[in-house]
Amino acid sequence: MDKRIAVIGAGPSGLAQLRAFQSAAAKGAKIPEIVCFEKQANWGGLWNYTWRTGLDQYGEPVHGSMYRYLWSNGPKEGLEFADYSFEEHFGKQIASYPPRAVLFDYIEGRVNKAGVRDWIRFETAVRMVTWDKNTRKFTVTVQDLPKDHCYSEEFDHVIVASGHFSTPNVPEFPGFDRFNGRILHAHDFRDAREFIGKDILLIGTSYSAEDIGSQCWKYGAKSVTNSYRTAPMGFDWPANWEEKPLLEKVEINTATFKDGSTKRIDAIILCTGYKHHFPFLPDDLRLRTANRLATADLYKGVAYVHNPNLFYIGMQDQWFTFNMFDAQAWWARDVILGRIKVPADKKALVADVEARVAGEDAGKDSYDAIRYQGDYVKELIAETDYPSFDVDGANEAFFEWKKHKKKGIMEFRNHSYRSVITGTMAPPHHTPWKDALDDSLESYLGAAETTAAAE
Amino acid sequence: MDKRIAVIGAGPSGLAQLRAFQSAAAKGAKIPEIVCFEKQANWGGLWNYTWRTGLDQYGEPVHGSMYRYLWSNGPKEGLEFADYSFEEHFGKQIASYPPRAVLFDYIEGRVNKAGVRDWIRFETAVRMVTWDKNTRKFTVTVQDLPKDHCYSEEFDHVIVASGHFSTPNVPEFPGFDRFNGRILHAHDFRDAREFIGKDILLIGTSYSAEDIGSQCWKYGAKSVTNSYRTAPMGFDWPANWEEKPLLEKVEINTATFKDGSTKRIDAIILCTGYKHHFPFLPDDLRLRTANRLATADLYKGVAYVHNPNLFYIGMQDQWFTFNMFDAQAWWARDVILGRIKVPADKKALVADVEARVAGEDAGKDSYDAIRYQGDYVKELIAETDYPSFDVDGANEAFFEWKKHKKKGIMEFRNHSYRSVITGTMAPPHHTPWKDALDDSLESYLGAAETTAAAE
Repeated sequence: MDKRIAVIGAGPSGLAQLRAFQSAAAKGAKIPEIVCFEKQANWGGLWNYTWRTGLDQYGEPVHGSMYRYLWSNGPKEGLEFADYSFEEHFGKQIASYPPRAVLFDYIEGRVNKAGVRDWIRFETAVRMVTWDKNTRKFTVTVQDLPKDHCYSEEFDHVIVASGHFSTPNVPEFPGFDRFNGRILHAHDFRDAREFIGKDILLIGTSYSAEDIGSQCWKYGAKSVTNSYRTAPMGFDWPANWEEKPLLEKVEINTATFKDGSTKRIDAIILCTGYKHHFPFLPDDLRLRTANRLATADLYKGVAYVHNPNLFYIGMQDQWFTFNMFDAQAWWARDVILGRIKVPADKKALVADVEARVAGEDAGKDSYDAIRYQGDYVKELIAETDYPSFDVDGANEAFFEWKKHKKKGIMEFRNHSYRSVITGTMAPPHHTPWKDALDDSLESYLGAAETTAAAE
Repeated sequence: MDKRIAVIGAGPSGLAQLRAFQSAAAKGAKIPEIVCFEKQANWGGLWNYTWRTGLDQYGEPVHGSMYRYLWSNGPKEGLEFADYSFEEHFGKQIASYPPRAVLFDYIEGRVNKAGVRDWIRFETAVRMVTWDKNTRKFTVTVQDLPKDHCYSEEFDHVIVASGHFSTPNVPEFPGFDRFNGRILHAHDFRDAREFIGKDILLIGTSYSAEDIGSQCWKYGAKSVTNSYRTAPMGFDWPANWEEKPLLEKVEINTATFKDGSTKRIDAIILCTGYKHHFPFLPDDLRLRTANRLATADLYKGVAYVHNPNLFYIGMQDQWFTFNMFDAQAWWARDVILGRIKVPADKKALVADVEARVAGEDAGKDSYDAIRYQGDYVKELIAETDYPSFDVDGANEAFFEWKKHKKKGIMEFRNHSYRSVITGTMAPPHHTPWKDALDDSLESYLGAAETTAAAE
């Protein structure tokens, strides 16, 4: 087959795409040539931890937003690959909230088994993608970073899987230019121990605020304050954690909030979310969307309505993650293999997007949102040979998780859930999360730590 | 005149280019259309301070490497514009080592007077430049960041003035992935007060190490350690400043050096220099050079030997700065205006570069290097109508400066020098540098601070 496919990014979404094509080939299908461009030196996307912040050794923006001691903030039973279970990878069932190193190992296990590493050009940054409507080809211009060499190649399809939790949304507040401490976005947060004994201020109520605050609390911050725009997170926080209305200004080391209250702070962490950012895409190819479940301009959440030869994987806000990327990747693959037809009429594509937006908007709460995204995953899986799984069961794990968080925000990770892939109940972890200071794979998979501060 | 010129960057080099053209126009010359693309919201390049680090509000790499409390680390008498003196700008002569805000004001004063702000498209990032050898035009593709809109325009010449002290060179040392504190490059250093009471480790012996260490010492770091690869800086450091051989590794909060000695550290600042980085230029246009006085591949240090329609301003390592950028900008302008002919034979261009490299290599010490760059400035000025000035006098200011640093690294900024433009002696500053904690323009130009810790 003469077709050539470019995949941009080798994180969970890009790797899902490689596995999707390899899976078809393993079943005897002829597949096109796949070239995956990855800026980092290894695969795994955000799960590939780096101590670096800002710009990397090649002057490129650091992709990673990952920090040390991160444990999954949702149950692994909601993200398990349908074609590669945790039990297959680890040889046993494991506890439900694995730390980063464990999830990285799991992600890597599937693609190592698939043997797709050779399809990836590592340390290669995509500089520009253009579409020629006459030849109906994309030209992808990249830079081989170690060789300091730019080159261009033509492709029939481009699949953008570069993530959208990498480019920080960084607002400014009055006084930031004169604050006498560190101001950083969650994207640049790396090690909670930097903040031992410090009074830290978090702006935002997102998962980043919740989790980075919890990390800092766990590792010994003096106090955690988080500032909300619309509503507090409302969890049952420890005594040294306080929720405040929106930050109004900072002066030297004092923060003033909208209610007039003040607080002395040492550092400010902006947990203000991320942007969809595609500096390598021109206007006619660049997705512009809010971070929501029903993205703008993507037919079936995947094919770009203004040019359905272009696909985007994983651009939705996410309850479902790895297995949703799989569902999308299998679907995009089947379009490219000619097994699924995308309507030729652009109106039909746009109508699909509008219906999805209306469907999301009709939901009343986060339980509806989970069901909505579960239904989306079911819809895509039904159109391909991706192994079907008990999506409703995964929904239930999410519902339980939300209740467990409400019950005890520093204890929810001590709970266990049942795999919807293998049906096995996860064992409880050997150590409560707040006492487990060593986040290594060995510690997580092994016996309890002998000392609380093993590290 | 039909020609169109793109200038990339509105820092000291780009602004020199705008002023060069405006100056010709003011004397009655017909000048081409000039379009300057600037990523930041204001001009001034590195002198435009921002609290931001990493990525900016548009997801673009933050240009600024500037930190609070920075004072010029060389005498202003070495960088004074020959066409716009400090006395003209401030209405009086001022002390020799102005803080950032004062130099920014000075830079801005000249271009405000010239009236060139309308030539600049702010918040516009250059994405790609290509050269068409048939049409002999450059296509410059940019993104208007606030409008999130990409567009392309054609130009006859491109002048790259995007700086080379913006993209950090960030090496890794063993243990960085497990260090329990902040690791940052000098590029991301903003406020020395973050490090009050801290033991900080600086890697490097560059100006960044010297100056950031001095800032941290001045504002209350507990100790400063700097690690050298080849030789210590050898200044007469304060008692809590120590020079160590190269870092071998870090473990948790302990640094081990090549001589086997160890030290407890809270933070690591990589003062390891910057890279020439042009992600918007393809192989045939991209300058690849070491940071040296005689750059690779630039005829007269300005015209790209592989395509002399392309110019680079300010890409040299620098003793001379603002007035050297002026000399280069006036020269590039005169090539574009047809007043100076660049040899058509590429061999002649390459020979020019080779001669410059040999000239630099023949120098024995930094005094020779200063003279070498002074001679280069003289050479360019002689070919244009840029006001000639006493370059040898500027050299002498640099020589004195070096001696003053040797005599007292925390006192050298208390010295004064004579302007080679106006012949006036600078007054001594009202407060010794180490006691002047307020770095504002008002404080510098006004009377002595009433309290040492006015801020």
